[in-house]
Amino acid sequence: MNQNNIYSFNKIDASAFKKAHQNMYNSKEIILGIQQKNTTALAKAITIIESELDKHALMAEEILTACMPISGNSIRIGITGAPGVGKSTFIEAFGNYLIQQKYKVAVLAVDPSSSLSKGSILGDKTRMETLAKNNNVFIRPSASNNSLGGISSKTYENIILCEATGFDIILIETVGVGQSEIEVYNITDFFLVLQLPNAGDELQGIKRGIIELADAIVINKADGEFINTANQSKIAFRNALQLFGCKENGWQPKTLTASALQQNGIQEVWQTIQEFVQQTKNNSSFHEKRIQQQEDLFFKRLKTEIQKQFFKQNTHNKNITQQLLRFKNKEVSLNKAIQSILSKP
Amino acid sequence: MNQNNIYSFNKIDASAFKKAHQNMYNSKEIILGIQQKNTTALAKAITIIESELDKHALMAEEILTACMPISGNSIRIGITGAPGVGKSTFIEAFGNYLIQQKYKVAVLAVDPSSSLSKGSILGDKTRMETLAKNNNVFIRPSASNNSLGGISSKTYENIILCEATGFDIILIETVGVGQSEIEVYNITDFFLVLQLPNAGDELQGIKRGIIELADAIVINKADGEFINTANQSKIAFRNALQLFGCKENGWQPKTLTASALQQNGIQEVWQTIQEFVQQTKNNSSFHEKRIQQQEDLFFKRLKTEIQKQFFKQNTHNKNITQQLLRFKNKEVSLNKAIQSILSKP
Repeated sequence: MNQNNIYSFNKIDASAFKKAHQNMYNSKEIILGIQQKNTTALAKAITIIESELDKHALMAEEILTACMPISGNSIRIGITGAPGVGKSTFIEAFGNYLIQQKYKVAVLAVDPSSSLSKGSILGDKTRMETLAKNNNVFIRPSASNNSLGGISSKTYENIILCEATGFDIILIETVGVGQSEIEVYNITDFFLVLQLPNAGDELQGIKRGIIELADAIVINKADGEFINTANQSKIAFRNALQLFGCKENGWQPKTLTASALQQNGIQEVWQTIQEFVQQTKNNSSFHEKRIQQQEDLFFKRLKTEIQKQFFKQNTHNKNITQQLLRFKNKEVSLNKAIQSILSKP
Repeated sequence: MNQNNIYSFNKIDASAFKKAHQNMYNSKEIILGIQQKNTTALAKAITIIESELDKHALMAEEILTACMPISGNSIRIGITGAPGVGKSTFIEAFGNYLIQQKYKVAVLAVDPSSSLSKGSILGDKTRMETLAKNNNVFIRPSASNNSLGGISSKTYENIILCEATGFDIILIETVGVGQSEIEVYNITDFFLVLQLPNAGDELQGIKRGIIELADAIVINKADGEFINTANQSKIAFRNALQLFGCKENGWQPKTLTASALQQNGIQEVWQTIQEFVQQTKNNSSFHEKRIQQQEDLFFKRLKTEIQKQFFKQNTHNKNITQQLLRFKNKEVSLNKAIQSILSKP
């Protein structure tokens, strides 16, 4: 397999993709492929990691264990913003800029289905056409919401695989729905929030929690008739961010304007991120944050699995049904119902 | 204790409050007080339910068990909206209107601290001055975020207590932060979303998930120069809501405008809610939703307690520490670390 074939998956070459899938059912081959920076192997590895099939569980384990020691050498950037803010266009412009700077860029998407309709909102290569055609780019639509271990631990594993395959910069895209921003914040180094140009009054509508998470706010669509409004927004956000002061790691979140359409301000976004990386690596907080993230992920996953194990034990089930009925009939309080389930061996 | 004293807590009479607390340490007295529709007893009961003290656990249990059979006879209305939308003013105007209609109104607040600063955003009687002075109103600031069993099961218990004390309408206020809207949606009959008047373009910035939850969207501040914009917003939201169609219970969510300041549109909000209650009681979905909510609450709480029980068992702890270290050192994958903890007895 020569260098040209290696990247053919990114060119959305269906036959090469199929061939690769047929040929690569062995975890050793996939690991070797990853070590050789083969993105077809990477794509296959992600499919295996995300698979719910039993036969893939051991393979996933072997691949991950091999990749972990050679992972970690990237900058992980979370990108969020409400629908309509121009995320795809921004990621396309930003990704293209990074490639010009000789970086290898992976784009992952986190797509929690909305709570009632279960509708999928995010993530299609077709939205980032010029980017998807580049050989130094890997684009992966979102992991399934139902995948084992939750969105963030699955995406975290995808990051590990991308890093092992030699990607320098990982962009993790999310929509501003439910917990997805927090999930992405929890597995990235730098959290970038995109906003539309808006007059000062409307800043009130922004989720306070997101502003607190942001390492930078980029007012996108700062072009044409919106330039003045964008600058007003920038000032308003800067004032708001300064109210919160520096983060614990010493970083003062920045406010920028950009036009992904006209490709303005993109360089400044990258400079800001580089400045952040420099500063937080100097004061060790870059590394400390990653360690803390691993710990949080560990306990989150442990808690999920503890629950699963409990519900697998059939001895509990009859008691659960009984107590639930008593609670529904208002015969017993929630506390008492739960305690009586847990007190049984 | 005569009728005048009973409501003195609502008049923020510190000495009466203190006296009531000194005199009422007996759960039987509190239960009797609640049965007699005494709001001082109600306030004390909520304090005991929210207490983390061991000595209060049994009392809480006795009070709840006594209140559950006489609970359920209210309309539970969740009210959300971003900071600045005028929630307090709306609740004040709405509450005053309901009292004029001879209802007894309780206002509870759910206040998740924001994820980083842990800052409290919500909930002060002083924000609803005229309402707080009325004898047929009970206002309770938020339960602590750290309270046993989570925000929603604690607030659910507060609802039970308010209903047992004879309140007909429970307003549960939340800010649009994190999961709080979902939590409140999960314990209420009707979910009302307040919005500011905005031109059509800016609707994109609204969380899609919230729109799906709403039973009604009320464009607040529809007064003065904003009347036209409010009407435009109303049309835009109505179009958006119609895209989603009816909810499973057959209800088509409504869009209204209101001015809490000028007390316009308040009556229409109440008419809409009455229409909803009528319709969903007729097709049984009102009752079915409450039963489902009880079930969800039950399993959510059960899961939390399962985790707590696991971590209390010291035999696990050494193994957890070991596996966490191995995961941090990239010697073992997350999956493998977790499995090796759970496979130990």
